[in-house]
Amino acid sequence: MAGSTYGTIFRISTWGESHGKAIGVVIDGCPAGLELSEHDIQPFLNRRKPGQSVYTTPRNEDDAVEILSGVFEGKTTGTPISMIVYNKTQQSKDYSEIATYYRPGHADYTFDSKYGFRDYRGGGRSSGRETIARVAAGAVAVKILNELGISFTTYTKSIGDIEIDYNNFNAETIYKNALYMPDETASEKAGEYIIKMTKEHNSVGGCVEAVIQGVPAGIGDTVFEKLDANLAKALMSIGAVKGIEIGDGIQVSKMTGSENNDHFCLENDKTVSKKSNHAGGILGGMSDGSDIIIRAAFKATPSILKTQQTVNKNGEEIEISIAGRHDPVVVPRAVVVVEAMAAITILDSLLLNMTATMDSINKFYKK
Amino acid sequence: MAGSTYGTIFRISTWGESHGKAIGVVIDGCPAGLELSEHDIQPFLNRRKPGQSVYTTPRNEDDAVEILSGVFEGKTTGTPISMIVYNKTQQSKDYSEIATYYRPGHADYTFDSKYGFRDYRGGGRSSGRETIARVAAGAVAVKILNELGISFTTYTKSIGDIEIDYNNFNAETIYKNALYMPDETASEKAGEYIIKMTKEHNSVGGCVEAVIQGVPAGIGDTVFEKLDANLAKALMSIGAVKGIEIGDGIQVSKMTGSENNDHFCLENDKTVSKKSNHAGGILGGMSDGSDIIIRAAFKATPSILKTQQTVNKNGEEIEISIAGRHDPVVVPRAVVVVEAMAAITILDSLLLNMTATMDSINKFYKK
Amino acid sequence: MAGSTYGTIFRISTWGESHGKAIGVVIDGCPAGLELSEHDIQPFLNRRKPGQSVYTTPRNEDDAVEILSGVFEGKTTGTPISMIVYNKTQQSKDYSEIATYYRPGHADYTFDSKYGFRDYRGGGRSSGRETIARVAAGAVAVKILNELGISFTTYTKSIGDIEIDYNNFNAETIYKNALYMPDETASEKAGEYIIKMTKEHNSVGGCVEAVIQGVPAGIGDTVFEKLDANLAKALMSIGAVKGIEIGDGIQVSKMTGSENNDHFCLENDKTVSKKSNHAGGILGGMSDGSDIIIRAAFKATPSILKTQQTVNKNGEEIEISIAGRHDPVVVPRAVVVVEAMAAITILDSLLLNMTATMDSINKFYKK
Amino acid sequence: MAGSTYGTIFRISTWGESHGKAIGVVIDGCPAGLELSEHDIQPFLNRRKPGQSVYTTPRNEDDAVEILSGVFEGKTTGTPISMIVYNKTQQSKDYSEIATYYRPGHADYTFDSKYGFRDYRGGGRSSGRETIARVAAGAVAVKILNELGISFTTYTKSIGDIEIDYNNFNAETIYKNALYMPDETASEKAGEYIIKMTKEHNSVGGCVEAVIQGVPAGIGDTVFEKLDANLAKALMSIGAVKGIEIGDGIQVSKMTGSENNDHFCLENDKTVSKKSNHAGGILGGMSDGSDIIIRAAFKATPSILKTQQTVNKNGEEIEISIAGRHDPVVVPRAVVVVEAMAAITILDSLLLNMTATMDSINKFYKK
Repeated sequence: MAGSTYGTIFRISTWGESHGKAIGVVIDGCPAGLELSEHDIQPFLNRRKPGQSVYTTPRNEDDAVEILSGVFEGKTTGTPISMIVYNKTQQSKDYSEIATYYRPGHADYTFDSKYGFRDYRGGGRSSGRETIARVAAGAVAVKILNELGISFTTYTKSIGDIEIDYNNFNAETIYKNALYMPDETASEKAGEYIIKMTKEHNSVGGCVEAVIQGVPAGIGDTVFEKLDANLAKALMSIGAVKGIEIGDGIQVSKMTGSENNDHFCLENDKTVSKKSNHAGGILGGMSDGSDIIIRAAFKATPSILKTQQTVNKNGEEIEISIAGRHDPVVVPRAVVVVEAMAAITILDSLLLNMTATMDSINKFYKK
Repeated sequence: MAGSTYGTIFRISTWGESHGKAIGVVIDGCPAGLELSEHDIQPFLNRRKPGQSVYTTPRNEDDAVEILSGVFEGKTTGTPISMIVYNKTQQSKDYSEIATYYRPGHADYTFDSKYGFRDYRGGGRSSGRETIARVAAGAVAVKILNELGISFTTYTKSIGDIEIDYNNFNAETIYKNALYMPDETASEKAGEYIIKMTKEHNSVGGCVEAVIQGVPAGIGDTVFEKLDANLAKALMSIGAVKGIEIGDGIQVSKMTGSENNDHFCLENDKTVSKKSNHAGGILGGMSDGSDIIIRAAFKATPSILKTQQTVNKNGEEIEISIAGRHDPVVVPRAVVVVEAMAAITILDSLLLNMTATMDSINKFYKK
Repeated sequence: MAGSTYGTIFRISTWGESHGKAIGVVIDGCPAGLELSEHDIQPFLNRRKPGQSVYTTPRNEDDAVEILSGVFEGKTTGTPISMIVYNKTQQSKDYSEIATYYRPGHADYTFDSKYGFRDYRGGGRSSGRETIARVAAGAVAVKILNELGISFTTYTKSIGDIEIDYNNFNAETIYKNALYMPDETASEKAGEYIIKMTKEHNSVGGCVEAVIQGVPAGIGDTVFEKLDANLAKALMSIGAVKGIEIGDGIQVSKMTGSENNDHFCLENDKTVSKKSNHAGGILGGMSDGSDIIIRAAFKATPSILKTQQTVNKNGEEIEISIAGRHDPVVVPRAVVVVEAMAAITILDSLLLNMTATMDSINKFYKK
Repeated sequence: MAGSTYGTIFRISTWGESHGKAIGVVIDGCPAGLELSEHDIQPFLNRRKPGQSVYTTPRNEDDAVEILSGVFEGKTTGTPISMIVYNKTQQSKDYSEIATYYRPGHADYTFDSKYGFRDYRGGGRSSGRETIARVAAGAVAVKILNELGISFTTYTKSIGDIEIDYNNFNAETIYKNALYMPDETASEKAGEYIIKMTKEHNSVGGCVEAVIQGVPAGIGDTVFEKLDANLAKALMSIGAVKGIEIGDGIQVSKMTGSENNDHFCLENDKTVSKKSNHAGGILGGMSDGSDIIIRAAFKATPSILKTQQTVNKNGEEIEISIAGRHDPVVVPRAVVVVEAMAAITILDSLLLNMTATMDSINKFYKK
């Protein structure tokens, strides 16, 4: 089954294992004429790089991206863009032991169940390093969306049960703290919590939220290809995500119709707008012109030093303690992955939407 | 954009509007040799039928399904199965007024934004009646899965903030109460709450949960086509759903690694199993052999009698009150829709999984 | 496997067997705002109707199409268009005998090999009646293309070894003779040949050619989704086709570079054009602005009265003679099928092409 | 539009330009457990290498393939296989002039029409070097098919009007002559013809034929995904191909039903077989167990030294003569490309076919 391909018009195919030679992505269907170089991609990869703070693993990975095709004289040509990031520090020895047992919370057992064996080095294809390819492709999608006036604010909304306070929301602080939280007070508390849990040989989870501004109304389809359905798939496909919310999310189940409905109004006496945004910018599967708001809940890093019970390949129940360089929390590094997947999904929907009416087709082709 | 097609191997294409001539579905890729007749489909459609209780709309729709192709001498032939349900009671007059304004919480505005106009009769393609086609296809998927030893328990988990108590969980009561709750006490309370809210010209939301037993380990893919990612899309594509959870869902963001990790153990000293199921039966995008647990949060019915503000086509802000036959809560009728979408998704993943290894291919083709 | 779905943006799903209740098609992705009614479809179905001449079977099928969804107040809404044609004269008795053996040149044996059994009535899904669905969908595609200034001239190029003479080419005669040939002399000769072969209890083949004018340059992709590659698939997917040619076709293998290359020139001192059209309007997989010329070679109707040898289900070698109402030649009725498949393919490529450059995306979305 | 991806289950994505850094392919969906190394791929690439004879260009390209992912401890893991071939000898200077005009028979004009500009170095993405990626992926497909007992005999059937004589057919000579013809006499004559045409500053075309043995009956689908339809697309997507034939091909249009029908018979009193194979092994879109026979007609290399007329970017009509290292005939080097595309197509059909019946699904999943 071809499970590493995503998108219809703007389609990406990712490849590579944690401890293989390299990680990469091919973007097939990127429009021609976009100015593009490695300088557009690298800052996104840097946002997911480890080793940036006390909360992330001290592995000093050097994830330098190289564009191999699809760009000529500084512009995309419309042909596939191949990007590669070499795995420079493959210390396979670190992972030799885990070949023999199934780590709780990891894909070891399911991988073996499906394929009969697995590339056990650092999680292989199920490693978080796989997201390098998503982020590289997402950087291209974000660049195109930015040109169209669509922008992303993506951040850590919560770590454990420490949530940001929207009254303290300050987008400018996001990249100024290692947890990518837009609320400095919450960030400090969350930092202390992470340090405490790390000392207890444990790990923590959290939520990432993305607010997307500028998406025109009418993007997405009415049945299976709803914009929110595709965003849900996009975000749930990121490792460690177990819940997805649009707008008020799970909470809507407890609200009445009169509480949840967003009343329509006129902005500047002209433009249709909404007085509230419980819907998170999507109605009936299509964008409604308001901010699109989406959240993903990440579980705690499953690799912990604390003793755990599991089963080994000899069919024995054993106790393990997973040493090694593991993030005590994946959430901050996942912020850019959420943004990348949302961007790819929205761009694809925008492209598909261009053929929705005879009017637009006539305008495009009639002389 | 072709947004009414779903699935890769077992692929469905749905069509039809609320007040058009009919609603239907074509299943392309159903395996040959399945015994199938309308008697397998109709019970599923009856589960989503309105007019069954005081909590659902008194419209007496007669949703009788007819199979038009793909079955010969009582068995599927491998060719497309076309099913049709005629819309018998189209009272278009009821809906003439809503053509002039945008109902809050509905797809009216987004539909017009995308296409320039809309079939305003009863929501047109965005009507809940669209799910008839999904349920008809889902009935076929469930039948196949049942033959393979996979079974579904799907029910209303909560209405407003009234949740079932798992200590009172009784699967046998699900179909004995109009709200499809597996806890009679909760069901009674929820019923009273619905009646109260209806009297206040309001509506309520709730959650549907599906527990799927018997899915073998290793189903789903490791990257974009993760089983949970596809289930998330499947359920989020149902109208009114705003949140999706797998296993412990959103709650995992507040749990530590040691709380959330499910330890592996041996069942009967042989089979690999898990001591808990926070993961909801899916690890790294693949089924792990435990029960698959998935939830969808539904918003309250947006059509309410209570006065609401909105905008009409003349660009005026107006006040409206939506009369007509509307369910005060869609959740009970949505139970079978969740089951249908989950079944179609899991069946498609099972079929795709058959080509995962050289071993299975060799077994299939080598003489 | 889902093999009855075709197209990416403008996607059709067909269903129905020769002697089932009906034949139908769902078009998913038709742009909104196209004026459409049964009157646009029926003339295309009439072009493939049998019983119109001495050369076609005297079955008096009444293939009346009905639109079931996707059209509101005379215009397409952007939602799936479902169309149905009921099978009125199902005389299953006629076909009972063929259930027991494999007809030479038919899909009986391969169908059984794949699925273990088959709907043997009139060929079931492999019947020529399946093309009704393609033609209905093709009528919609042709209507859209016509609005964009793209037109089709499709006709019988040859019957047996009687070919049209391009010096006598007269497009106006195509629908004036039952063989749909644009050369009356050739048509007469071909008619005599068919009558002769019918008397000998035999059948004949021939070629269909389509000339498509007005396709702008640059449609199609450079690698796998070449316009000619998709046209080849589209036409080869029609039953009885065994060869496909673009422009000079097979003949190019015998030509030198200097004979085959079309020199570019300027038309009216301005527009780039070609002095010849050996390429058939496609270079490097993309349309070049010249007429697109494509041909399909059809084998003779495999059902013949002449004695043939075959094998029956009891594993015996037997002799058969196939009686019944069979066209001695399928070519004239296939003309509109070729046109339909070519139109669907070209329309889909046109829609996909709208997202090829940043320029067009900017024009569409930038305010 | 995503036009560089091919296949459903076994899906390849190719990338790279003639004079870019590299050419590559990602295979997504290759079954796990296949022994695979560069040694399986390189021989296929060597078959398409230039510089092997007087008939091919003296460019000494060193097309060494490297596997970057998807293989662990010598076996495929089920995850994407990324392969890369670096472009070592990029002499861009050679191609600077062609940036200013449209070469007859090339994709220069159509590329510019679509995208507004092009990577003009050596044809960019439309170069024959693009087929390196197809051949690398095809080598994997052939290896799997060989394990299942399916084998390919692919060769040059004709050069200009010099055809092989089937009475002299000797598969062993195919790789012993530079033209890959299975008839030494024809090969000699064809060689002389090529030398003559080269001296006249011209080029020649020809046909490639593939005979595929061992495909079980029932592979392919009955409607759009017919095996022959997909083979036609696969081969027509190779640059320079203008005609496709299955079995007797174009010739069937001139044959009667009694001439063209293959009579069924019993082999060894048991197995259903055919007395002849005009159908080329495919009936009703599905394989019939006989040899699959398919042909592609290639046009002559469009780059010739002979003077040609064309148009330049300043809108002037000019005369050109294309110097440089160009094959006078692409046919011999295209033999392995035809084999690769046919193999990928047949493998994908075989994988899809595994889910065709309830019997096979039950066998796979029922315990």
